[in-house]
Amino acid sequence: MVEALSEAERADALDGLPEWDYDEGRDAITRTVVFDDFVQAFGFMTQVALVAEKANHHPEWTNVYNRVEILLTTHDAGGLSSKDIELADAIDAMIEE
Amino acid sequence: MVEALSEAERADALDGLPEWDYDEGRDAITRTVVFDDFVQAFGFMTQVALVAEKANHHPEWTNVYNRVEILLTTHDAGGLSSKDIELADAIDAMIEE
Repeated sequence: MVEALSEAERADALDGLPEWDYDEGRDAITRTVVFDDFVQAFGFMTQVALVAEKANHHPEWTNVYNRVEILLTTHDAGGLSSKDIELADAIDAMIEE
Repeated sequence: MVEALSEAERADALDGLPEWDYDEGRDAITRTVVFDDFVQAFGFMTQVALVAEKANHHPEWTNVYNRVEILLTTHDAGGLSSKDIELADAIDAMIEE
């Protein structure tokens, strides 16, 4: 069972994720990505879906046409955990491609 | 260019869509669908994405694990239009399968 990050661990992790914002109320991280169109946005979501399912750790996300808003937190841990940091790193790598 | 439905047209359309709620503030319709797991939920989203792209009319939607919340409205028409009703019918047919 994964545990929520300590404040120091979280600060370290966020330093490595400059594209993500910390949501204090949810103990979560969020990132919004804007693509050229829906095909690109949903293609990205499909990539994330496969990685998320493999890791058995899934995002909360909203899509409106070319925009995808992602929120990562770990319900089982009651907040941000290493699983979220790993998924955020994987998502950043996909976007950079 | 598609126009927003009149109040009478909207009432008729909603009669045919008992699973959808009318969102007055957005002049939109909404439906939440709960699946067994993420694979089923995202599989459904992929079906909807293909139909939506083909019709060039896209949902606003949020996914949290096995749950998909869908909102349909037509930005170009400033509210609910026949495009939303057609997409809602297509979505209902997918869910019934």
